[in-house]
Amino acid sequence: MVPHLVTALTGPISELEQRVLESVPAIERWFRLEWMEHTPPFYSSVDLRNAGFKVAPIDTNLFPGGWNNLTPEMLPLAVQAAMAAIEKICPEARNLLLIPENHTRNPYYLMNVAQLQLIFQSAGLNVRIGSINPDITQNTEVRLPNGESLLLEPVNRSQYRLELKGFDPCTILLNNDLSAGPPGILEDLHEQFLLPPIHAGWSVRRKTIHFKAYEEVAKRFGKMLGIDPWLINPLFESAQQVDFAQGQGIEALQDSVTAVLAKVRRKYKEYGIAEKPFAVIKADNGTYGMGVMTVQDASELDSINRRTKNKMSVVKDGQQTSDFIVQEGVLTIENIGGATAEPVVYMMDRYVVGGFYRTHASKGADENLNAPGATFLPLAFEPEHVLDAQGHPTAHIPNRFYMYGVIGRLAMLAASYELEKTDPNAEVYA
Amino acid sequence: MVPHLVTALTGPISELEQRVLESVPAIERWFRLEWMEHTPPFYSSVDLRNAGFKVAPIDTNLFPGGWNNLTPEMLPLAVQAAMAAIEKICPEARNLLLIPENHTRNPYYLMNVAQLQLIFQSAGLNVRIGSINPDITQNTEVRLPNGESLLLEPVNRSQYRLELKGFDPCTILLNNDLSAGPPGILEDLHEQFLLPPIHAGWSVRRKTIHFKAYEEVAKRFGKMLGIDPWLINPLFESAQQVDFAQGQGIEALQDSVTAVLAKVRRKYKEYGIAEKPFAVIKADNGTYGMGVMTVQDASELDSINRRTKNKMSVVKDGQQTSDFIVQEGVLTIENIGGATAEPVVYMMDRYVVGGFYRTHASKGADENLNAPGATFLPLAFEPEHVLDAQGHPTAHIPNRFYMYGVIGRLAMLAASYELEKTDPNAEVYA
Repeated sequence: MVPHLVTALTGPISELEQRVLESVPAIERWFRLEWMEHTPPFYSSVDLRNAGFKVAPIDTNLFPGGWNNLTPEMLPLAVQAAMAAIEKICPEARNLLLIPENHTRNPYYLMNVAQLQLIFQSAGLNVRIGSINPDITQNTEVRLPNGESLLLEPVNRSQYRLELKGFDPCTILLNNDLSAGPPGILEDLHEQFLLPPIHAGWSVRRKTIHFKAYEEVAKRFGKMLGIDPWLINPLFESAQQVDFAQGQGIEALQDSVTAVLAKVRRKYKEYGIAEKPFAVIKADNGTYGMGVMTVQDASELDSINRRTKNKMSVVKDGQQTSDFIVQEGVLTIENIGGATAEPVVYMMDRYVVGGFYRTHASKGADENLNAPGATFLPLAFEPEHVLDAQGHPTAHIPNRFYMYGVIGRLAMLAASYELEKTDPNAEVYA
Repeated sequence: MVPHLVTALTGPISELEQRVLESVPAIERWFRLEWMEHTPPFYSSVDLRNAGFKVAPIDTNLFPGGWNNLTPEMLPLAVQAAMAAIEKICPEARNLLLIPENHTRNPYYLMNVAQLQLIFQSAGLNVRIGSINPDITQNTEVRLPNGESLLLEPVNRSQYRLELKGFDPCTILLNNDLSAGPPGILEDLHEQFLLPPIHAGWSVRRKTIHFKAYEEVAKRFGKMLGIDPWLINPLFESAQQVDFAQGQGIEALQDSVTAVLAKVRRKYKEYGIAEKPFAVIKADNGTYGMGVMTVQDASELDSINRRTKNKMSVVKDGQQTSDFIVQEGVLTIENIGGATAEPVVYMMDRYVVGGFYRTHASKGADENLNAPGATFLPLAFEPEHVLDAQGHPTAHIPNRFYMYGVIGRLAMLAASYELEKTDPNAEVYA
C-alpha cells in the first residue's frame, strides 16, 4: 500500500499505469513474498523519472536525507514503519545514536536530522546525535531555521563500542553515506547494531551492481505483471578505468554510450516513440548528483571542456572516480508551475511513507535535476480522497502516486539483492 | 507511537498525563517487549473515560465496527498496520473473506464493512464479503449512504472450508462478534485462518476475565511508570446467577456494588476527590452498550422497574444473561459543544491507527454514552502540528491523544492476556 498523495500528473493514465493500478492485490502479494526471502534496507529513498511511456528509478539512496521535506501527515506513517523496523531488528533497543553527515553547516540537512530524531523518538527510543566530524570536539548546539536547535555531540570510541558521554547506545543509525570510506571509528562494532551496514555506504556501493540487481527485479516483476521489463527498467552499460583528465579510457566510454543509445533507439522504434534517445553518464560510486553528464551522441565526448573533465573526475567528499555507469536517459513528463519535476519516494523498512517532488526551473526534461537550484515540493495527501460529514468517501480518484510507490519499492528490493551480494559476511550464513 | 490527533481537552495537563508524556521512550519500549511475549489481537477498539484525575478503559471490542468514522488521513496508517498484521500471520494470503454482522439493514454499519474492505484491498488482498445471515441466500447488492454499493454473498461451507462461489479464501476476517455463539458454519475450519479466533467472540468472552487481565497489565505498567495503578484501572467485582426478572441473586449484586463503592470512596478520599462515586453494572458478556445500568448506591437495586429488569436480562442477539460485572464508574471530563464525550481508540495489530469521540447530548458525565442518540466525531490530525513552507515544524503542541493511545494499547494488551487464558487450544503449545 502506498499513501494517496497528489501528483502533478494530469494527463491520461498510461497503459502501464493502468496495468499497475488494476493489479494492486497481486503486486502487494508479490512484494509480501519477496520480503519473506529478502531483508529490506532499513530506510531508503528513490529518485524516479516518468516519461509517460516508461517509469524508472534513476537513483537509490540508502542514507536518505530530506526527511524534513515530507508533510506532517506522513510522520505517523514513518513512525509506525520505524516501530516495525526496530521491532524486527532490535526490539530491546533503548538508546539510538544517530550519526549524520559531516557537512554540519547546511541548515536544511540538519532539519532532516532533527526530523529523523523526532521519528525515532516517537517510535520509542532515546535518540542523540553523535558527530564523527573531527571538527566537533565538544557538544555543539546548532540553531535550525525554524528556531529550534540540534545538539551535536562528539562520539567516543572504546575498544568495542561507540558512545556519547553518558549515553551508551545499543543501535547506531547512519545518515552518513560514507563516501570517503568508513572511518575506523565505525569498524568492528560487533556489540552494537549498525544500521544500515557499512557495505551500504558509497565506498562499497556501485551503481552498476545496483542496476544489475534492479534489472533482475524488473524482469521478475515484469513477468508477474505480463509487461515488458524495459517499461520500468533503464538500460545501462559500464565503463571502467576512465580518466577524464588524462583522456584515457574515453573510447571505451564512447562505445558504452553508443551501445546504450542503439538499444534505446530499437526500443523507441518498437514502441513508436518519437523522442530522441539520450544517455546519462554517472560516476559508478557517485551521489549528491555529482559526477553526472548527459549526452545524445558518443561524439560529444570527443571534445569536453576542462570544467566537465573536473566535474566528472571527483565526486562527494573529494573522492576520485574512474568507473562509470552509462544509463539510458529517462525523460520526465512531470512539470510543476513551469519547473521540470521528478518524484522522490521515501521508504522506511518495506513501507512507502511519503515523497516529494524535486523541481528545477532551469533544467529540461532530459537533464539531471539533482543540481544546485533544485527545490523540493512536499506531496500532500489527495484532498478529494476525503470523507463527507457522515464519514463516507465522496469520490474515487485513482491513486497516481501508487505507481511511484511500486517503482520505489522495486528499486528498494534491488538494493536488498545488492546488499546480499556485497555483504562481506555473507559466507557466514551460506 | 500514536498519531497526533486533536482532542477536546483544553484544561491543564494532569499529573498523570504529564508523567505519560515525559515517558514516551520508556512506554514504547515497554510495549515492544510485551509484544515479544504476547500476540496482539488482530484488530480492536477501546472505549475510554478521562476523569481528569484518572483515565481508564471501560470496554474493549475485538470485532470493531465504526472504521468508517476514522478520518481519511488515518487510512494509510490502518493499511500499513494491516500489511504488518497480514505479513505476520499469513503472508501468502491472496483472498480474504470478510464476515460482517448479520444486521445488514444498518447502512452505517455497512459503511464500516466497506471501509474494512478498502483497507484490506489496499493492503494487497482480494476481499469479498460473505454473509452468514441465513436470510442472505443469493448475492445481494446493498446501496450505501454515499451512493456506492456493497455486495454481500452467501457463504458455502464444504467439509473443511468456507467459500463463496468462485472465491476460495485462505483467510477469514470476522467482523461479527458471535454474541449468539459461533454458528456451526464457522467451526472446525482447520485449513483456513480465522481472525480473530472464535474464542474472541462474546459467546466465550467475559468482561470480568478481561478486566482481571487489565488489572494485571495496569499493575505492571504502573510499576514501570511509578504510578498508582488505580489511576488507570477501574475497580470491579463480579456477581453471578443474578435473575433480575425473578429477583434472584440481587443481594449478592448489591454486596458487590457496596464493595466497589467502598473501595472507590477510599481512593477518592486518598486523592482528595470531591466527586460522588458511582458504579456501573454491566452484563458480563454484553456488548453494543446493552445490559448496562448506573447506580450510586446498592439500595437503588431494591426497587427496579420492569423496563430496567428487561433491559438487564437480555443482551445483543437476544441472549439471556445472569452474570454481571460491577465496575467503578469513571467520569468523563470531555465535552464537545455541550455534549458529553468519550474517546474511542482504534488499533490494528499493535498499532494505534486512529480514533473518534462518541458524544451524547442528553447524557451526563456519569452515564453510558453507548446508547441510542450517540453521534461520532472523527478526530483529525492536530492542524497546528504543521510544517511551514520549508518543511519545518512551527510549534510543539503536546500530543494529548498520546495518553489515550497508551490506555487503548494497555486494554489491547489485556485482551491478548485474556485470549491466551481462554484459548481452547492453549495446551497444544504449553
